[in-house]
Formats: sequence, structure tokens, C-alpha cells
Amino acid sequence: MGITTPPPNDIRRIVEAMNTTGPLPVTRRQDSGRIIVESVYPEIDCGRYPVKRKIGDEFEISADIFRDGHDVIAASILYRAADEDFWRRAPMYHVDNDRWGGAVRLSRNIRYFYTLEAWTDVFASWRRDTGRKIAAKQDVGTELIEGREIIERAAKDLANGAARKLRDLLLRIDADSPTAPTNVLLGDELAEFMAEYGPRDDVSRFPRTLEVVVDRERAVFAAWYEMFPRSQGTDPTRSATFDDCIARLPEVQAMGFDVVYFVPIHPIGRVNRKGPDNTLNPGPDDPGSPYAIGNEEGGHDAIHADLGTLEDFARLIARTRELGMEIALDFAIQCAPDHPWVKQHPEWFVFRPDGSIKYAENPPKKYQDIVNVNFYGQHHEELWAALRDIVLVWAQRGVRIFRVDNPHTKPLPFWEWMIREVQTLFPDTIFLSEAFTKPKMMKALAKAGFTQSYTYFTWRNQKQELIDYLTELTRTKCREYLRPNFFANTPDILPAFLQSGGAPAFKIRAALASTLAGVYGIYNGFELCEGRAIPGTEDYIHSEKYQYKVWDWDRPGNIKPFITALNRIRRENVAFRDFLNLEFWRADHGSIIFYSKMTPERDNIVFVAVNLDPFSAHETTLWFPIAQMGLGDNDPFEVEELLGGEKHLWRGSPHHIRLDPHTNPVAIFRVSIWQNVDYRRPAR
Amino acid sequence: MGITTPPPNDIRRIVEAMNTTGPLPVTRRQDSGRIIVESVYPEIDCGRYPVKRKIGDEFEISADIFRDGHDVIAASILYRAADEDFWRRAPMYHVDNDRWGGAVRLSRNIRYFYTLEAWTDVFASWRRDTGRKIAAKQDVGTELIEGREIIERAAKDLANGAARKLRDLLLRIDADSPTAPTNVLLGDELAEFMAEYGPRDDVSRFPRTLEVVVDRERAVFAAWYEMFPRSQGTDPTRSATFDDCIARLPEVQAMGFDVVYFVPIHPIGRVNRKGPDNTLNPGPDDPGSPYAIGNEEGGHDAIHADLGTLEDFARLIARTRELGMEIALDFAIQCAPDHPWVKQHPEWFVFRPDGSIKYAENPPKKYQDIVNVNFYGQHHEELWAALRDIVLVWAQRGVRIFRVDNPHTKPLPFWEWMIREVQTLFPDTIFLSEAFTKPKMMKALAKAGFTQSYTYFTWRNQKQELIDYLTELTRTKCREYLRPNFFANTPDILPAFLQSGGAPAFKIRAALASTLAGVYGIYNGFELCEGRAIPGTEDYIHSEKYQYKVWDWDRPGNIKPFITALNRIRRENVAFRDFLNLEFWRADHGSIIFYSKMTPERDNIVFVAVNLDPFSAHETTLWFPIAQMGLGDNDPFEVEELLGGEKHLWRGSPHHIRLDPHTNPVAIFRVSIWQNVDYRRPAR
Repeated sequence: MGITTPPPNDIRRIVEAMNTTGPLPVTRRQDSGRIIVESVYPEIDCGRYPVKRKIGDEFEISADIFRDGHDVIAASILYRAADEDFWRRAPMYHVDNDRWGGAVRLSRNIRYFYTLEAWTDVFASWRRDTGRKIAAKQDVGTELIEGREIIERAAKDLANGAARKLRDLLLRIDADSPTAPTNVLLGDELAEFMAEYGPRDDVSRFPRTLEVVVDRERAVFAAWYEMFPRSQGTDPTRSATFDDCIARLPEVQAMGFDVVYFVPIHPIGRVNRKGPDNTLNPGPDDPGSPYAIGNEEGGHDAIHADLGTLEDFARLIARTRELGMEIALDFAIQCAPDHPWVKQHPEWFVFRPDGSIKYAENPPKKYQDIVNVNFYGQHHEELWAALRDIVLVWAQRGVRIFRVDNPHTKPLPFWEWMIREVQTLFPDTIFLSEAFTKPKMMKALAKAGFTQSYTYFTWRNQKQELIDYLTELTRTKCREYLRPNFFANTPDILPAFLQSGGAPAFKIRAALASTLAGVYGIYNGFELCEGRAIPGTEDYIHSEKYQYKVWDWDRPGNIKPFITALNRIRRENVAFRDFLNLEFWRADHGSIIFYSKMTPERDNIVFVAVNLDPFSAHETTLWFPIAQMGLGDNDPFEVEELLGGEKHLWRGSPHHIRLDPHTNPVAIFRVSIWQNVDYRRPAR
Repeated sequence: MGITTPPPNDIRRIVEAMNTTGPLPVTRRQDSGRIIVESVYPEIDCGRYPVKRKIGDEFEISADIFRDGHDVIAASILYRAADEDFWRRAPMYHVDNDRWGGAVRLSRNIRYFYTLEAWTDVFASWRRDTGRKIAAKQDVGTELIEGREIIERAAKDLANGAARKLRDLLLRIDADSPTAPTNVLLGDELAEFMAEYGPRDDVSRFPRTLEVVVDRERAVFAAWYEMFPRSQGTDPTRSATFDDCIARLPEVQAMGFDVVYFVPIHPIGRVNRKGPDNTLNPGPDDPGSPYAIGNEEGGHDAIHADLGTLEDFARLIARTRELGMEIALDFAIQCAPDHPWVKQHPEWFVFRPDGSIKYAENPPKKYQDIVNVNFYGQHHEELWAALRDIVLVWAQRGVRIFRVDNPHTKPLPFWEWMIREVQTLFPDTIFLSEAFTKPKMMKALAKAGFTQSYTYFTWRNQKQELIDYLTELTRTKCREYLRPNFFANTPDILPAFLQSGGAPAFKIRAALASTLAGVYGIYNGFELCEGRAIPGTEDYIHSEKYQYKVWDWDRPGNIKPFITALNRIRRENVAFRDFLNLEFWRADHGSIIFYSKMTPERDNIVFVAVNLDPFSAHETTLWFPIAQMGLGDNDPFEVEELLGGEKHLWRGSPHHIRLDPHTNPVAIFRVSIWQNVDYRRPAR
């Protein structure tokens, strides 16, 4: 073997060099660009928009990383929270075919930045090549000297602790045996040390710094209950109050909801006020639409006097928190013509050649009770700041969830700026985009920063269209930034399915919304199976939007126990807290949809089967994915149907089921895998 | 109808305003970002790399373009050649679902820049809304005034000609009929004018400027013939000369090749020169490998004295041009240890601790006849410039095609810089990347600027693997930047298929290479079915790389007539000039592959069927795609088999075929569609 003992002088020189202290060699050098770092995942629109994660997530990042020639390369993830001014590092590993991966734990509710850095690992390249030469019995005398030169380069930059470690390693080279130096120089211990502290050539950084917004848990797992606060009382001739709302909270909590969403609570305009059923001639006591915001009593930062005072609101917030719930407010930017801003800031609005203010319109439709602000008019910076400040005021009053009305009719740059401003001060703020609009705009709003999005779920009723849509949401790139909030109905949308299908339809849609998505919601009355529409429309008849209303919350035919059970099952099975773990499986009947949610560790496995036909019972075979459940073909598994409580001991994939919309339109199976002890093997 | 006559004063004011002249309102304003312009196609890696097209192409560009609200938007492509300092504009049109498209004619062999701009068309928005109001019989008096205000905004910026046109249009408003103003204001003529000259709000530009490299025709359609110039003579004891090469050109031309590619023609190193069959102990007259470049007589810019002088080379270039052909040279950056640079610029090389120069190696393999330059060493800027200048020297000597040896072992930033430098001076320069390496590096070299790329074609022999690979090349994003050059063999690669399959194998591979790709090549000897390898390798026995060689260019068993026919058929059928028009069709037998090339106008339709088995005849049914050929199910079509000359009159999709490797391994069908006159209809 051509092994040469190193000249002892060299070792001494290296050890001496190590006694200097210096900065860790992780500062950025001039980027060589020699190592290609590309096709980073996740990255949205070339880094233009952040991706989204929730607190505690293991954030996986991958990229294609390679260079010319055969030298050994290495790579790190660089990441930092928005309030940190230094990069942290996490290692990346080669996966396959020049694809590298790594992961970072996102421990805070804040925005993070990340990018990637790759370099040539000089020592590892030397070690691999020298090892191959030794294996081929070539002389490596010069190579050993070269190896020492690389260590010298490293030694120059080392801090004290690392220098001591390297000194200990190298002094071992000073041994009697002629092979000892090679053993140490080519050994794992020095290799590990040099991977961390050795020289890095050709440092190349991914050219963009990317962002990930880390939200709190409720951004991804919550059950919403929408209400008109003024309709929570018992007198149909006047507005209910926040105290009436407080009185209702325990019931809503008992049903299992944890976000109570209020439509606007501000003073309502008197000019061109709408009457009952959206008429143009209201009586003197008609309350108007809460979406026509503002009158001489105040605007978006004020509370409608009929609902209560700021103190009442504070009590409401406090009581909601006590119950483990949270209030969401509506943020609707339009103003009534008598909103204080119209007089205080006419420059924020558009006036016509005849001197009149420009009402909202979508020709030939006119909305005379509403005027829109001009986002690109004179002094629009002040307008944008004023709108942001409204959100900040409510955030300071304890509201951290905002459902935003019609964001697709306001400029995207405004949303992007405003949401970032608010979340910088209140990172726990959640914004829900109410944009029932074209698909690319819906996605653009999510990219611009909305935490959650209304979706087309409300109109997806058939098996294949549900699978297609959920596959788009969970398997295409929008999974990285668009979080659906599956609302089963809204004050504006009473879908035909609910109008026609009676209680079974409400149960079917509640089950789908609550088990498909992490976040879902209903608008009150849903639990009462309220399905009366203006014929030929999706509008509720005698809508709460334009009049006081009193509900009988326990009226016959309600499905409150069913909804309560759904919310309980969601809470008790952690697999439902994720959305992207959704997978569809084979059910032979075209009206029965069959899907699962499983934790990565498979310690919670739930299957849901829903009969999508609200009129007829159907039977089918469900095909359980035995392998994906972690089972062998002949392994038994215990199944509990969580809505009815029956248990089964099953084996094999196909199982027959009958779903009758009038008794059991839905089945939710929890699978338990038995841990069988094999006594032929020794116990652990 | 609520139509109001406009106050005549307004018109006068507008017309007066128009008498001012000013710049065309196409200068860039502050970007509002309000209109989203995203998902531009084509765009490679966020604009990091250019796409490729050929001269004369209609370059199609599409994008998602949309904004908040309901206003009418419009968009342009902005583009300019690299030597122009102003943007040209081409209109974009809405296709569907917020997707817009447009196209630009690329008329020059140069690099172009392109980006997109979108804006709110203020007048079109007003016109649409006002039209809807009129249709709903609403009063539009104020709207008409608003419309005139928009025209006034436009009039301020108009140049003389446009101002005159607008004046003519508006004076027609001054009519007697009360409906006339509306007719003109809402009419198509004014709308067209305002689309061009009207005010543009919310101007938003795509944030990146993208590039398209426009190459000449031979970059995408050429047949290459590779040779060792020193082996083109008749005396096996000495080098042939450029004059011997000139003597061979007519024969190569007669076979239908138009690019003659020479392996390196420079002085060959004497230090550690390789002997025949890659041995290490050459005789005094052994010529060495031409890839060990440089000795005391000169380096990369010099010509091996045995081949001839610069004047001889000039005659060779001139003669090649006369024959409609072109010489391609090899650009191989490695140096022999006695290359002049080693003495002149030792700082460009790596020396070891013992003072010796570092040879090329891929441990444990050593290449002692070659040393590599150090691309990131001291004074590397001078090195990069010197390498560029070598290419420029040869370009000035009339060579505009370079086959680059092993580019994947040199840094990508070097290639990107060098190719751009050369193409800025000589835009007609073509670079072929000889990188038989991992897929991502192969693509990265194409992205960095190589005009063409060697591929894995050489090893793809089975039907499905050929379809898969060609589908990747023609249907995934690499189609925008990676142009394959399908070499059937090279001096380094004599594939097993050719070693075993005899003449049928050579015919099969020639047919595949020449009809699948626009650019293809063979290394000389292929036409003679030379298939003798060092056993167990892909290396030719007694390779020309290490010794003089004399070929009998008409030796028995050659397939020159077959190759000549292939090249003639390629030239005569323009559908073969494209690559991306390749489509595969059904052939029932697993050994027979069936594909087509058609022009977009379907005035040239060719189908190719190849028996991939060089040993056995196979029969199958080919399924012609009647609809894609523009035929009805019962329409007859004329078919000519271009290799054999037989004609058929066929009808319907399935047709039976027998392909015998020993007589007809390949069939190439040209389809002619008859223009039938239907006498029941009047003649045109």
C-alpha cells in the first residue's frame, strides 16, 4: 500500500493555526452560481407569494441541486423568523437523481423566510477520491499532503471549541503505525467534523428568498357558526343585543362550534336604506342591511347602538373566550352614502359630473344603499391606512378572525399590503376571503395573503365533481396556499340541494363539509333545516339581511344532535385536523362517496361513506385500502361506526354497506389495528 | 329612451384639446400591480433562462391576466430585438377563463426580449356599462358626459394624425338626430380608436423581462456526418489532409448530409501520448488522441501541421459552402501537458504539493495525457476570455457550428457567459452539447444556452421507451429549450444494438434518428455498418481515436443508398423540418413503432413505421388517425411508400403491414388528400 507518514511539521503547523479564533465559517461569500439550485418546492409563482403552514409543522423543502464534474456537494436550508436578523441552518440530504430534501420545524406563529445554499465540500471530495485510489492500491503520498492542506484551510477560521476538537483529532495522527495517519485522515470522525467546519468552495445560493406564513391551529381546524346578532333575541320588532348573543353562546358551544361569526355590527346607513325582501321603500322602523355600513353615528369602527356598547362587546369577547370559542367579525369595505367618511374624506370616493356620488353598480344592477371607496384615487395612501386601522382597532378589541366581504371587487395589492401590516402586529389574525368568483381570482386572493377561502364546495354535489374538486384542492399546487373553509350555506346562498332535499340533504352537506375540510361553517338556520327560498333563486325568503328575525332554535325537525355528533367526532379524531391527508377510495355505487383521513403514524384512521342522494337509500361495496392501512391481506381490523356506535371485526378489502338518507345517510368508521403478539418470537 | 344630446360646447372643447401634439401614450407609467399578470408561457425557471425558437417562427405567448371588479382590461406583448432600445407591441386576446394569448413573428436571427403589459381600458369599460344601461332603458345623460370626459383625457396625449382621426369622428356627433351622439359615442369606430389611443389605467407589467433566442434553420434541421479528418485518406501510415477531406465532400453531400463535423484538428500533445487502442506506450509515429490538445507547435487556435495550413482550411470552408454544406468543429477544453498555455499561464492550471501538474482523473481512473484548466482559479477572468476567444477565432475563420466536448465537466456559468458572448457577435453560431450525463445536468446545459443537445436516444431501442422519451422531449417544458441532436453512433459509443443487429440494425437506427428528430447525425463507418467493438464494451476496436485509419467507403454491405434515401425524403417533406409535431399512433405489434409528422396546414403528412426487431419480420395493423388527417371516416386517401415507391388508395383507419428487417425494416408513407369536387354544389 502506498501510504506515507505525514511530515510531523505539518501537524504542528495545523495545530498552531487552530489557536486563532474567528467567526463561524457560515457567512455568505460571493455567490459563484456554479452549483445549480433550482426547482425548489414549495415555491409559489417564483417566490412572489408565501406558502402557508401551521404552527408546529415540519416544513419540508426540496430542490434540484447539482454541479459540473464529480466533486462532492452539500447543501443547507437557510431560514429565519421575520423578527430575526440571522439565518439558521438545517441540513439537506440527497434523495435521488439530483433531488435534495430537508425539513425545518416551524415553532412560532409568525412569517418565516427561507432559501437554500449549496457548496462543494472540498474535504469530502478529497476523502472520496483518495479512498478510491487506496482501494485501487495507488500511491497516495501527495494526496495525504493535499488532505492536510484542506484541514489547514479549515483551521484558519475556527472558533475555540471547534479548534480544540480538531486539535484532538489531529494529534492522533502522530502515531507509530504507518497506517494511523490515513485511518484518522480518512476516518468518519474527521469527516463529520469537516462537513461542519471544512472549507466550502463554489458557494451558491438559490437566488430568491421565499416566505412561509405560519398560522395558529384555528386557521386550519375550526367549526364556524354564522349569525346575525340582531336576530338572536325573542322580539321580532326590534334588534337583539350582544347580551342576547351571550345568552346563545352555550348552545352554540354545545353543538361543537368554536368560531362564532357575526355579520357587520356597525351603524347602518339611512340614505337609500333597503326594506324587507330587498325592497327600495322601507318603513321607518326597518333596520336595513348591515352591509350598508355607516351613518352619522359612526362608521366601521363603531357599534350599532341597538346591539350594545363597546363594554357590552368586551363582555361578549370575554365570555366567548371563557367558552373556548372566538368571535369572527365581518370586514365589508363598502359604505352607506351617509357614512361619516363621505363628508370627512370626499376624496376617497368618486363623484359624477353632476356632482352626485357614484353608487355601487354592476350595470344594469344598481346598489343605491352602498358607495365604494376609490382605491386608486387622490390620497389613497390615507384611505388604505384608514382601512387597515379599522382592522387594527377590532384586533385591539380582541377580534382576531375577519371574514372579508367580496374581496375580489377590491384590488389585490391592497389586500396583500393590509394583511401583512395587520399580521406583523397581530400574527394570530385570520382572514377569510369571501370570494365566490372565478377560479384564478379565488386563488390570487389566497396567494395575496388570505388565511382561508370560501370555495365552490357549496355547489359540488355529485360524486365525481366532489372528487375532482377535492383532488384539485389537495393535490395541486394551491394546496400550499389556499385553505378552504367549506361553508354549507350562507345568508346569500341557499343551494338547490338544500331547498329540495329536506333534513337528509342538510345532514349530507354537514357531513361532507365537516369531514372533508379542516375548517367548515354553517349559517344559522342550517341546523333547523331552514330551506325556504325565493322561488327560482338561491336567496332565503324574508332574509335576515333586510329585517329583524326571531328563530325557534329548537323547532321540530332540527338536526342539532347530528351536527353535535359530527363536531364531536371531528374533535376526537385527530386525523380530521388535517386537510391534505384526504384520500378517496373505491365505492361501487355512483351515489356513494368514500374517503379516508389518516395520521402519518396511522394511529388514527377514519373512513367516511356518504350517500349523496337525499331521496333514496343505496347499497354498495366499499373497498378498504388494506395496504395503506398498514395491514396484511388477512389481518383483522376493528371498526367502530362513530355516528351509530356499532362495532365490527372485519378482514379484507370489500365490505357491504347500506346508507338510507332518512336514517343513516352517512357512516364514519374508525379503524383500530390490533397489535397481535406473535409468541413464536421473543418478547421485546 | 333616456338619451340626452351632448352640450355642443363639450365637443368643441374636445376638438380644441386635440390640436396639441404629444408622444404616443405607450410610455411606461408607474406599475400599479392591480392587474395580475402571471403564469406566463413560455417561461423557463422564472425567466432565468431563455426559450429557443427559429427564425420566421410565430412565437405564441400566453398568460393569466385579470383584475378585481368588473372593468374591461386589455393587454399587449412587449418585445424587442437585443439591439433595439424600444418596445414593440403585439395585441393579446382573451382566450378563456382569464387566459390571454398573442403572438409575435420572430424575423431575425438574434436574441429577443419580451414581457407583458395589461391595463384597464377606461373607455371600453364605460362603453360596455353604458350600453347595458341603455339596453335596460335607464337614463344615461350623466354617462354620456362621463364618456366625453374619457375622450378628453385621450385627446390630450394625441399625436397629429390620431388627433385628426378623433376630430373627424367626434364632429359627426354634432348631428340633428338626438340619437346620433350615442351612435357615435357607443359605435365600433370610436371604440376601435379608443382601444388604441384611449386612457389606460392601472397599467401593470409582468415583473420579469424574458428572452427568446432565435436561431437559424440549420439549428433545428440538419443531418450531421462526423469524421476524423486524418482518416479520410488512403495511406494507413500517415495522416490524411484537408485536401483529402475536400475530395470526400461530394460523396458526403451525395448521401444528403449538410454538416460535416471534424473531431479536433489541433496539434496533439506528445507528453504521455496514448498509443493504439488507448495504450500508454506509443510508438514514435503514433498520432495520439486528437482530444489531447496542444504541443509546442500551438494550442486550440492552431491547426495540426499534418492536416494542412490555415490556407488549406480556408479552401475547405469555401468548398463546403459551395456544396451547400457546413463544417462543425470540436471544442474540447482540456489540454495536453505540453499545451503552450501550461507554460504561458500556469495560473490557469492546478499544481500539486509536489510541484507536478494535476492530470485529469475520475478516481481511480487517470488521464495522464490531459490536464484540465481551473475555471475558478487565479486570473480566471483571463482564462474565460481566452477560451471565448478561441471560439471567436474559429468563427472568424468561417466556422459557425461547434460540438462541445464533455460540457458537463465544466461550470455552467462559464457556458452561459461564453455562448452569449459569441452569439452577440455571431448570432448564427450553433453549439452542440456533448453531455452524456444525468438528466438534470443535460437539461441545465440546454438552458444555459447550448443550441442542441446529445441525448439518451442512442440507448433507447424498445417501443415504449422510445415513446416515453420522445414524449418527454416533445411534450414537457424542455421542448422550449432542449433541441435534440439524435446521433446514432459516436466514436465513443457503438451501442450493443449495432454490434449485434447487422445491417438491419443500422437501417433501423438511421431511420429512427432521421425521422424522429429534426437534427441527427452519424459517425463515419455507420454507413458501412461498422460494428466491431472491444468485447463487452461500447468502444470501437482499433479506434480512430488513437491511430491512423483508412476506410473503404464503398465496401460491400454498406447502406449508403438507404441513408441517401432517408436524407432525400427528409428534405422533400417539410413536415420533417419540425420536431415538436411528432405524434405516436397505434400499431398493434409490440415491436413496430408508428408515428407521424404533419405540417399545421396538413399539406404534408408523413407516417413512419419501423420494425424495432433487427432479427425477425413482424406483421401488424397500423391505425391511421383519420380525423387528425382531416378526413371523414369514408374518405379515400392516397398513400405513397417513399422508400419503395409503391402507391395505395386507402380508406379507413386500420391497414395491415409486414416489415422484414432484411428487406424493408422501415416504411415511410406520404399521404395525399384528394380534393374531391362535389358537382351537386356550384363551383367556386
